[in-house]
Amino acid sequence: MKLVSTASTDIDFEKDGKQIGFVNLPLSVHEDAWGVVPIPLTVIKNGKGPTILLQGGNHGDEYEGPIALGELIRDLDPASIAGRLIIVPAINLPAVVAGRRTSPVDDLNLNRVFPGDHGGTITAQIAAYISDVLFPMADVFVDLHSGGSSSVNVPSAAIEPAADPAHFKRNIDAVVAFGAPMVVVISNRGDPRTSTATAVRAGLTVVGTELAGGGGVSVEALAVVRRGLRNLLAHFGVLPPGKDGPPSITRPDIYEITPDAYVLATETGVFEPLHLNGVEVHAGEPAGRIHFLANPGRAPETLYYRADGIVYVRRQPGQVRPGNVCMVVATPYRGQLP
Amino acid sequence: MKLVSTASTDIDFEKDGKQIGFVNLPLSVHEDAWGVVPIPLTVIKNGKGPTILLQGGNHGDEYEGPIALGELIRDLDPASIAGRLIIVPAINLPAVVAGRRTSPVDDLNLNRVFPGDHGGTITAQIAAYISDVLFPMADVFVDLHSGGSSSVNVPSAAIEPAADPAHFKRNIDAVVAFGAPMVVVISNRGDPRTSTATAVRAGLTVVGTELAGGGGVSVEALAVVRRGLRNLLAHFGVLPPGKDGPPSITRPDIYEITPDAYVLATETGVFEPLHLNGVEVHAGEPAGRIHFLANPGRAPETLYYRADGIVYVRRQPGQVRPGNVCMVVATPYRGQLP
Amino acid sequence: MKLVSTASTDIDFEKDGKQIGFVNLPLSVHEDAWGVVPIPLTVIKNGKGPTILLQGGNHGDEYEGPIALGELIRDLDPASIAGRLIIVPAINLPAVVAGRRTSPVDDLNLNRVFPGDHGGTITAQIAAYISDVLFPMADVFVDLHSGGSSSVNVPSAAIEPAADPAHFKRNIDAVVAFGAPMVVVISNRGDPRTSTATAVRAGLTVVGTELAGGGGVSVEALAVVRRGLRNLLAHFGVLPPGKDGPPSITRPDIYEITPDAYVLATETGVFEPLHLNGVEVHAGEPAGRIHFLANPGRAPETLYYRADGIVYVRRQPGQVRPGNVCMVVATPYRGQLP
Amino acid sequence: MKLVSTASTDIDFEKDGKQIGFVNLPLSVHEDAWGVVPIPLTVIKNGKGPTILLQGGNHGDEYEGPIALGELIRDLDPASIAGRLIIVPAINLPAVVAGRRTSPVDDLNLNRVFPGDHGGTITAQIAAYISDVLFPMADVFVDLHSGGSSSVNVPSAAIEPAADPAHFKRNIDAVVAFGAPMVVVISNRGDPRTSTATAVRAGLTVVGTELAGGGGVSVEALAVVRRGLRNLLAHFGVLPPGKDGPPSITRPDIYEITPDAYVLATETGVFEPLHLNGVEVHAGEPAGRIHFLANPGRAPETLYYRADGIVYVRRQPGQVRPGNVCMVVATPYRGQLP
Amino acid sequence: MKLVSTASTDIDFEKDGKQIGFVNLPLSVHEDAWGVVPIPLTVIKNGKGPTILLQGGNHGDEYEGPIALGELIRDLDPASIAGRLIIVPAINLPAVVAGRRTSPVDDLNLNRVFPGDHGGTITAQIAAYISDVLFPMADVFVDLHSGGSSSVNVPSAAIEPAADPAHFKRNIDAVVAFGAPMVVVISNRGDPRTSTATAVRAGLTVVGTELAGGGGVSVEALAVVRRGLRNLLAHFGVLPPGKDGPPSITRPDIYEITPDAYVLATETGVFEPLHLNGVEVHAGEPAGRIHFLANPGRAPETLYYRADGIVYVRRQPGQVRPGNVCMVVATPYRGQLP
Amino acid sequence: MKLVSTASTDIDFEKDGKQIGFVNLPLSVHEDAWGVVPIPLTVIKNGKGPTILLQGGNHGDEYEGPIALGELIRDLDPASIAGRLIIVPAINLPAVVAGRRTSPVDDLNLNRVFPGDHGGTITAQIAAYISDVLFPMADVFVDLHSGGSSSVNVPSAAIEPAADPAHFKRNIDAVVAFGAPMVVVISNRGDPRTSTATAVRAGLTVVGTELAGGGGVSVEALAVVRRGLRNLLAHFGVLPPGKDGPPSITRPDIYEITPDAYVLATETGVFEPLHLNGVEVHAGEPAGRIHFLANPGRAPETLYYRADGIVYVRRQPGQVRPGNVCMVVATPYRGQLP
Repeated sequence: MKLVSTASTDIDFEKDGKQIGFVNLPLSVHEDAWGVVPIPLTVIKNGKGPTILLQGGNHGDEYEGPIALGELIRDLDPASIAGRLIIVPAINLPAVVAGRRTSPVDDLNLNRVFPGDHGGTITAQIAAYISDVLFPMADVFVDLHSGGSSSVNVPSAAIEPAADPAHFKRNIDAVVAFGAPMVVVISNRGDPRTSTATAVRAGLTVVGTELAGGGGVSVEALAVVRRGLRNLLAHFGVLPPGKDGPPSITRPDIYEITPDAYVLATETGVFEPLHLNGVEVHAGEPAGRIHFLANPGRAPETLYYRADGIVYVRRQPGQVRPGNVCMVVATPYRGQLP
Repeated sequence: MKLVSTASTDIDFEKDGKQIGFVNLPLSVHEDAWGVVPIPLTVIKNGKGPTILLQGGNHGDEYEGPIALGELIRDLDPASIAGRLIIVPAINLPAVVAGRRTSPVDDLNLNRVFPGDHGGTITAQIAAYISDVLFPMADVFVDLHSGGSSSVNVPSAAIEPAADPAHFKRNIDAVVAFGAPMVVVISNRGDPRTSTATAVRAGLTVVGTELAGGGGVSVEALAVVRRGLRNLLAHFGVLPPGKDGPPSITRPDIYEITPDAYVLATETGVFEPLHLNGVEVHAGEPAGRIHFLANPGRAPETLYYRADGIVYVRRQPGQVRPGNVCMVVATPYRGQLP
Repeated sequence: MKLVSTASTDIDFEKDGKQIGFVNLPLSVHEDAWGVVPIPLTVIKNGKGPTILLQGGNHGDEYEGPIALGELIRDLDPASIAGRLIIVPAINLPAVVAGRRTSPVDDLNLNRVFPGDHGGTITAQIAAYISDVLFPMADVFVDLHSGGSSSVNVPSAAIEPAADPAHFKRNIDAVVAFGAPMVVVISNRGDPRTSTATAVRAGLTVVGTELAGGGGVSVEALAVVRRGLRNLLAHFGVLPPGKDGPPSITRPDIYEITPDAYVLATETGVFEPLHLNGVEVHAGEPAGRIHFLANPGRAPETLYYRADGIVYVRRQPGQVRPGNVCMVVATPYRGQLP
Repeated sequence: MKLVSTASTDIDFEKDGKQIGFVNLPLSVHEDAWGVVPIPLTVIKNGKGPTILLQGGNHGDEYEGPIALGELIRDLDPASIAGRLIIVPAINLPAVVAGRRTSPVDDLNLNRVFPGDHGGTITAQIAAYISDVLFPMADVFVDLHSGGSSSVNVPSAAIEPAADPAHFKRNIDAVVAFGAPMVVVISNRGDPRTSTATAVRAGLTVVGTELAGGGGVSVEALAVVRRGLRNLLAHFGVLPPGKDGPPSITRPDIYEITPDAYVLATETGVFEPLHLNGVEVHAGEPAGRIHFLANPGRAPETLYYRADGIVYVRRQPGQVRPGNVCMVVATPYRGQLP
Repeated sequence: MKLVSTASTDIDFEKDGKQIGFVNLPLSVHEDAWGVVPIPLTVIKNGKGPTILLQGGNHGDEYEGPIALGELIRDLDPASIAGRLIIVPAINLPAVVAGRRTSPVDDLNLNRVFPGDHGGTITAQIAAYISDVLFPMADVFVDLHSGGSSSVNVPSAAIEPAADPAHFKRNIDAVVAFGAPMVVVISNRGDPRTSTATAVRAGLTVVGTELAGGGGVSVEALAVVRRGLRNLLAHFGVLPPGKDGPPSITRPDIYEITPDAYVLATETGVFEPLHLNGVEVHAGEPAGRIHFLANPGRAPETLYYRADGIVYVRRQPGQVRPGNVCMVVATPYRGQLP
Repeated sequence: MKLVSTASTDIDFEKDGKQIGFVNLPLSVHEDAWGVVPIPLTVIKNGKGPTILLQGGNHGDEYEGPIALGELIRDLDPASIAGRLIIVPAINLPAVVAGRRTSPVDDLNLNRVFPGDHGGTITAQIAAYISDVLFPMADVFVDLHSGGSSSVNVPSAAIEPAADPAHFKRNIDAVVAFGAPMVVVISNRGDPRTSTATAVRAGLTVVGTELAGGGGVSVEALAVVRRGLRNLLAHFGVLPPGKDGPPSITRPDIYEITPDAYVLATETGVFEPLHLNGVEVHAGEPAGRIHFLANPGRAPETLYYRADGIVYVRRQPGQVRPGNVCMVVATPYRGQLP
């Protein structure tokens, strides 16, 4: 029994012009026996050129990417581009509607179930649709994340590692072209179940972002992603260069997230950070304190950095449990750059 | 059947020295038939002087006040003070433990049930304990709030109105002495069910704060409250003046929150603010846009300011529903200042 | 401490013309510290004439009334009326948004908390707003119910009893003028905590409806309420008579719900009704059977009618527990009609 | 590690007579470490003849099938039949007990997890038991559905497609013999994960039904299924022909559900249908309107049919979200009938 | 607006013989608009004699009392008694059906809302029915508790204090006559909102029990309550003396629960008791240890007794939070016995 | 795409001495995007000797094993042992923190998902870590269970069957050496998805326990497991023999749990057991009664034993549903002992 996607759409991926529509993925639940999950999908196509797959809403509480993609969908004139854009600004629709990182339908994190399963629950089906239907059409994959409800990041672009140096270089060049204030290699501890890792395995050039967070919408991060998307489309020749000419690809400092980057909570309490994002810190310095509000006679517990670098992420909610990430330090990339 | 509080404590409110302990309020629930809610309470007393009641955790997800009160509890030497401090840093303990604005036990907002009810559910009992047991012992009431999970405020001190001009002046002078970067008259739309309104009715001098928010802990706001509490105790003569002499009581600009202050969401979607906190804005200007991520073909809805002033509060979570407060504008106080 | 409503609105109840707006009732919850519940309220006014208060959404899962009131709001030309309409089509807004009989905020049934309490939880505050602010402005109160998620009624109009025969007659005449297929005296077992009972105590002429149900929207019931509202406005002289002249006030048969009307489930299982709504039945006849699907070897339990009359209500969900109403029989009214 | 079913039963499938019992499937949960799910199973056997597997409760809120199967279990005299009936009237027992479409244990829809997995969660184990244990014993599979809580269908019998024309014809003939007022080919958008599709792959003759719905029990639909089951058993020679002779197998009109059949909600609101089930409609005609009760100034959104045919399904709950099925149109079958 | 109970029943409290029935209390909820809570109530009456009100299910997870009262209901021959028994074995029916201490409808603890409120939520209405309808008919009130889900008690009978020594003596004599292995004066920290405290204020003779617990059914405690009820009825002359003659009223040792009785958890963890129930312990001795399973390097925290006496209660669930009662020590009664 | 564990730890499994630390397993959820599950893991190693893997917290509400392992972790002097102990006292950390049998993250029972899946949800990942990382390092696997929240067992040690008689004998000898009051062969109905069955397939010598239960901590069972662990380590030569010499390996009576062992509830109600644990009973004797508290006129239902033996398990919560295990009888082992 070979399973294929049961998704359907009225959109013709090969037609020039702009089509704003939906991919309907059947979902039979108590509240709707024969209903669908209507995932918004837009194709903007004109003549020859690469296919760029632009994705937002991988996690449902990361908003800057979906907002900026919505603007592209409404504002881009098909005549102004060369190639094809496939834009899915709210790919994990149930999570986006809920404003949750994970799907309220099956509690799964879309970015941990790739390459997906057409016979699985809805989140696995979405992943399989991306892997089996969208990736084969695309040359470039852009996955726009923010920090989510639990953390606030320095607005930045993320490089997905690739085993092949030429592939890795394509990823780096594209990320640099995006033009974010900071550039970080993020491998998610080597987890192969993310959409970007899967896209690399499928041969696509990949660009990621981490844009502020806290479950909110950042004025500054929105400016970064709006400009970055234009830069990126110019980099791939889909849009003409901006009025300032082609974005510089002088390589900025590149950071990475190493296993020592994480400052983990060791107790249940309320975490007080000692530094703002972007500050330079060193291994062994205090990073913050866990306070015990229900027992104020108890002295707070101090947490320490384990790496040298700059504060890249701070936890948003004050409450912590053991294992929660309180701070993340980005360190200068030590690997070999192609 | 006259009801009295069933709370009990080993603390002797009349004894000199420092006593760190708990007030136990019985709560008979499924998980514990005969248990108690152990609300932390500390008394630090030395000789003559006013009684200052310092409260944190009125809402359970506002952390800077409780953290700073915990530091006072652990650090203050009784010999260094003149008078009595009654410190309840986590007054709504069930909410503090849950990290929620409202109580997980009865879903009530403590700051909307004053003066409370000894025969009501636990939150009403806590309010009644404050009203009937703690207020009669105190001269001054300090209620330390932050913005909570849903909003981020300009760190500020709040003046509770009082009908009697002399009483109003006492409140203003104390708030000014606290030394926050901004001072705002906040009347909660005239709701008499708050702890500060109830304290004013009981004749106490009252000081409030609104310190950052977003359900997190702010580095900057913590600095404000730590300094402010020392300033305030000096103002009342409980602590000697700081090394810089008595805190200035030169009156800063005083703001207020008028009925036109609120920018309310009109649709379900994701709100993009157009300004940062502290920015000057004017009635009629766009305040932000509500985006429809699940339907990107639909143009966003613009919201407008209805007052002139500065942005005092922004909503933290991106998701909004009709009626949610997106932004709050503080306008220069127009009433008569005593 | 005398409490008054903290609700506010931009609507001027005394101004001629049509104003479509909201009453904002503050609600401070975890998700929104300073937000409001925006209850839609429309005033349509022209010259002299009675004030008719039209309410829908008392229960949040009864849709025909709110739909028909929305149409009045959008369609009525103020110039065509004489008097004032105050229309609140979704009075229990949180319940309407949730599609639930009771409020998701405090789990209360609005129609069991009258006359309400300005210091209570949100549902009690809504009731108090109606009782203290809206009722004093109105001459007539129309409360549009359907059966709700749990039951399907014969579309009908409901007469609220009144101790004063003249008052009772006014109620009967108005209900008859509404022109529903069936007319029933409903006293909710004498409960004084409903909005209609409270309106009668306040001296208003009162009209109720029960329009289909099952948590859905009925094609037939919508036709009844659309026509009925026009008839009613004509009855009170707010609209001119319809093209067929004044609606007949020949009194139809009037039914009532007596204590014996209810067929109650006695076991946990699935109820099979033996009759459709509108069928004539007699005390002692089988009304239905409770089946035990998890234990099919057990014979079903038969329930019996306890009154003569016609089937007025059937339960919608198959599942029942002891005490659930399975069927309700309407019997010819036996009281004295004024 | 080859997994087999851990289910056990005292029933002897090869013994003549009637055995009413249970299949116990172990389920180790917090509330019962060593307990079982007792799925009711009855075998009625007499001499030679085909084995008919009769299933109800695939979805737990579809009641007419389980009720009628319970009556067969209690009423059929084994001496009156020729062959074997295996009756599982509440196959997804946890869902039946909960009255929910999907299982409360693992939130899975049984009819989307075939062929199941003995090592999976409980719903997958039930599917695997059916696939691996029950299907190999049976010649015919009857799966009795209703519309469920979310929709109300025209009471009808459903034909499962089969690639082999002879097999397809066997299915058609059996469905026709059932004698429902309407006959529809339903392929669930080609999903191979249903019990009926799996039974076809296993070579069984398959009959389905869709009997009313709304989460309730329909007087009319019960009459259809009671008569239909007798007709079907006569068709297969398990029961003698009814007193009116063998049921007619003159083929009625056969309908199908095409991809254009579904009228999908495009907004969040309350759906008003414009037609009753069974009405003839045409593509392009209005099907209904979505009303915005919380914002009555906004005009409703009209939805349109996309196919010619008759209204086969209407949604029961008034509330809709984008992607919900509001109406389904059955069109005359256009494929080749064997 | 004077509120009275809306409860109704077919039972005639003045009729001789045995009537097993229900009191129906209307409850209008989402799942059932016009339904009732059917509280089982039985009257067994014969000639002259006192009226004994026997109550179980005050808390819904305390089973020995309800089981024993059910046996009385089924087994007692009316001809064998003199007087009247009013038996309500599952007074808080929603809690009993849920198996929870508190009501699943409104989350209230019935034994903390007396004297109740006919206009309140369902639990308050039940209390008001007891206070206003049942207490005025009764001479004696028997309230059968066990420890509940959270604690296991030494099976015992409980004396409710009364200000009037003669009343207190009546209570003591009745409790002693019950014949439990242990007798304890329990005042619930002086809380006047219990059913027994309310009954005393109404002038009734009152008997309580605490029978094992842990949310289970105890073989031993059932034996105690079965025998005790017979003893009690004999004590009041409703039943003839048992075959062993009148139960002895030689006063056993009487214990009490003082404010120092409770060993409270101070940390979140798992509590290990060091003693079994019934063991003699002394103030200052270790009572148990709180273990930190998620952090096994941390040494456990020891808790100490604060009173001399015997272990009367141990907590059932291993998990504890600060404020949970871990152990309760019963000390010899130090008050004056009448 | 070959998946490997993403778990990481600072512990060096090959180093002599005692290392108390954690294995961090990444878990990306709404509340913490980049956090980990910190599973406590301790290695105590000295010189040559076998590797014993000691596991507690397989189910999160079984406390005696984790408590005793925590004591070993804190108390054992590495110098006193020969070999290596790998101690994971809270292996299913999320369940242990929640005090639930199953994981609150994915609702899975860890002991039903072996051998696990590195790409699955967190519980499957934990199982895979044990199977793929820990088992290959170990010679002996000790899995310490208690009865859990739903049942109370006779404190006992459990023998895992093994197909190879020599392997089976190793298991038996180790279990006997543990020295529990009772020894039972438990095969979990042949389910291969448990940790102990998986360990046997991996060739390890396996020891299990069932120590009291009810979700509490048993004074007696703690004594059994403390002594048993010392005995076991001595049996494998990791600790020197106790002061009483080597524990006896005279084989005690060995029991087993057969398919007839379980007394299953047949109705929803409250179960009254008729016997205490440890009592000898016979097939056909009454085991208990199910009472119907909400309907006391209905006589209770009696359940019967189906096997001869001793009562090994009784259900803790009084409430039962069909399929719940009420009692379990252990019968003398009838298989061949190696």
